[in-house]
Amino acid sequence: MTHLPLDCLLLPEWLVPVEPAGVILKNYALGIRDDRIALIAPREQALKVPCADIRELPNTLLTPGLINAHGHAAMSLFRGLADDLPLHVWLNEYIWPAEAQWVNEDFIRDGTELAIAEQLKNGISCFSDMYFYPDIVCQQVHSSGIRAQITVPLLDFPVPGARNSAEALRQGLQLFDDFKQHSRLSIGFGPHSPYTVADQGLDNIVMLAAQLDAPVQMHVHETATEVQQSLDKYGERPLARLARLGLLGPRFQAVHMTQVNDEDLALLVQSNSSVIHCPESNLKLASGFCPIERLWNAGVNIAIGTDGAASNNNLDLLGETRTAALLAKAVAQSASAIDAHRALRMATLNGARALGLDSQTGSLEVGKLADITAFDFNDLSVQPVYDPVSQLIYAAARNCVRHVWVGGKQLLKDRQLLRMDEEKIIFTSQQWAKTIANKSKA
Amino acid sequence: MTHLPLDCLLLPEWLVPVEPAGVILKNYALGIRDDRIALIAPREQALKVPCADIRELPNTLLTPGLINAHGHAAMSLFRGLADDLPLHVWLNEYIWPAEAQWVNEDFIRDGTELAIAEQLKNGISCFSDMYFYPDIVCQQVHSSGIRAQITVPLLDFPVPGARNSAEALRQGLQLFDDFKQHSRLSIGFGPHSPYTVADQGLDNIVMLAAQLDAPVQMHVHETATEVQQSLDKYGERPLARLARLGLLGPRFQAVHMTQVNDEDLALLVQSNSSVIHCPESNLKLASGFCPIERLWNAGVNIAIGTDGAASNNNLDLLGETRTAALLAKAVAQSASAIDAHRALRMATLNGARALGLDSQTGSLEVGKLADITAFDFNDLSVQPVYDPVSQLIYAAARNCVRHVWVGGKQLLKDRQLLRMDEEKIIFTSQQWAKTIANKSKA
Repeated sequence: MTHLPLDCLLLPEWLVPVEPAGVILKNYALGIRDDRIALIAPREQALKVPCADIRELPNTLLTPGLINAHGHAAMSLFRGLADDLPLHVWLNEYIWPAEAQWVNEDFIRDGTELAIAEQLKNGISCFSDMYFYPDIVCQQVHSSGIRAQITVPLLDFPVPGARNSAEALRQGLQLFDDFKQHSRLSIGFGPHSPYTVADQGLDNIVMLAAQLDAPVQMHVHETATEVQQSLDKYGERPLARLARLGLLGPRFQAVHMTQVNDEDLALLVQSNSSVIHCPESNLKLASGFCPIERLWNAGVNIAIGTDGAASNNNLDLLGETRTAALLAKAVAQSASAIDAHRALRMATLNGARALGLDSQTGSLEVGKLADITAFDFNDLSVQPVYDPVSQLIYAAARNCVRHVWVGGKQLLKDRQLLRMDEEKIIFTSQQWAKTIANKSKA
Repeated sequence: MTHLPLDCLLLPEWLVPVEPAGVILKNYALGIRDDRIALIAPREQALKVPCADIRELPNTLLTPGLINAHGHAAMSLFRGLADDLPLHVWLNEYIWPAEAQWVNEDFIRDGTELAIAEQLKNGISCFSDMYFYPDIVCQQVHSSGIRAQITVPLLDFPVPGARNSAEALRQGLQLFDDFKQHSRLSIGFGPHSPYTVADQGLDNIVMLAAQLDAPVQMHVHETATEVQQSLDKYGERPLARLARLGLLGPRFQAVHMTQVNDEDLALLVQSNSSVIHCPESNLKLASGFCPIERLWNAGVNIAIGTDGAASNNNLDLLGETRTAALLAKAVAQSASAIDAHRALRMATLNGARALGLDSQTGSLEVGKLADITAFDFNDLSVQPVYDPVSQLIYAAARNCVRHVWVGGKQLLKDRQLLRMDEEKIIFTSQQWAKTIANKSKA
């Protein structure tokens, strides 16, 4: 295959493949053919392969595209609607009423478009979503060019777009059919949490997920209160209950996990479940601290998620990863906990593994999908550069993101979205805010 | 005075004066005359005042310039030299040897220039510094146009530029003379910490600070180890020792304070000392958590510092403030701890108060110095805008900084430095890194 011409050859200053771990390649080139990485080789050697589109990328670091493993995309339209409030006030008095009043197909379309555009600008090539009208979300993912895991939201009460859980499940099963062959979409189940779905609903999901070999993402152990309420109601911790029901396993994605005792840790390790860590959401809602250094050392796969922008308040996975790396040290009381390379791995390959996509994306390896982010280090805040991975995690910020490719197609070029109309998205978002703010006052 | 023409009239979408607290002015204008804020008035009324330079600032939020209340500017040249290491390894095996080998007048000049340039681009109009060769730092502050508190570093051992503490003190006293009348520079004392300066040295500082009415900034209670060692050596906690020696008071700036018991809190409150909170440094070095919500509620003035870029690793005060606001909630176990307005106040007026400059800067009030930052909200990541202060603290990032004025002079315009050569600064920084990296390997 190497004699075939390349579609594009990228010549960055540094290339960090993530796999193998800890490697920084200097003066290497990456070749793209169709949707795949076709070549990773020293610059001079790569330049011998025929290619019409050769890109010099001085002062640039190439990494795998970032993977945002948990969020609620369309909630971006509620960003900043209600902050600095206790969780129950925020939910009961603001978010749930706002959702009941405003969430419809238009809201989901416009909010998801805003979220996808923001994520691409922030270097994210793949995200996971758990929100209403997942069919609309799938359409937006399809047209935008980004990669995503869309989970079907399941709760034991009516939600926007589904009068009951049976209807939501029926709609969800249709998505599995509709997008089975889609190259950038994977469908999963999104039971909201152990406290909003009863055993019967979870039994159904266990059965269907096994049948469809589908991922399951769920908020688990977000707060100490949740754990205590489960002990009161079921006589067992939520994770133990999920294990008993057969939900845990390599396709299970436990989001938050701020409460981890020895029993929980053993269940995660034995089942090979993943943990999705959302540190800024956990801080902002005062939910607690997920002990990721301890989880990592036990062998648990940890990915990073921004959570929804209504609680976080942005979809900045690089910033979230920085927070994760910093916070891990304070929580573990060790300045060497979660070093920069491990942090980058959480934001890329571990995210892919959590979503069941690690054979296809998450690292820069020949044969994998060309999901790539280019960071521009021609920025005062990352000067000078001794170690580009240290600079990326601890000094850089989202404005260093310059280019993004998903499946070999460039979606962000020189910080500009190639397939989406940024001005129109901003305008539409502002129109929503005007309507929502005015009506909410009335 | 209002009949005199204005030098410049700014017409932002939102203006947040910080004082009075919690106010967001929409469709207001701010007029600058000489180095001062001459007018704050409704847009239509302000437009009647003669002014040749009228600036429409749509989608823009004006706030007081950010104040970075603690750092070691020139250490930016060591940014990322050594990360993810325990504090004692980082200091003993990397930073102290590197300082002994590399810190000279050229290093301080180039490193300080890099730090000032980065800070202006990040919306910082005033910073505090504690590092070697403070005379060189003063020269850089003078030529750059930024405002600063420069503290004379004092330790009980030789440092770059001073063979002993007597020499350092003598040089420092010269600075008080040289810059007494400078409009943008204030000189203070920077005894490094309770564990690096003995009682005799602190006695001297108490006497001189009283005589010169000078501020004193010091690392205090950075770690639990420091507190324990003081208990072992002196039979008292470091803050109690400083109180006994007479160091605490309204001009005293205690940096870090991750360890606060009831006795410490009472000392801070009674003495009206300020605390400089550096949350990201505390996280990254696993130093501990400063309980700022508790301090705030007790009435302690809390400002924000980035700390030096060798430990942090950037001089991004907006990001630091976001981390402070998020972390405060988790530490206080309350999602309503340190709301967005209080966070902005810490980053502006509280910083000015800590540095003894609150009669002159830190808020947008008529008669105060025109130290102003303009944030551009024409950015996907802050859309839509329900509350601009919420968006600033929780969703925006340093790339939203668009303009900065210090003392009425614009130093940053459309993200470009007007008085400094960014390309040259980047080039010079990279030259330093090449030299340091090569020689350190040898």
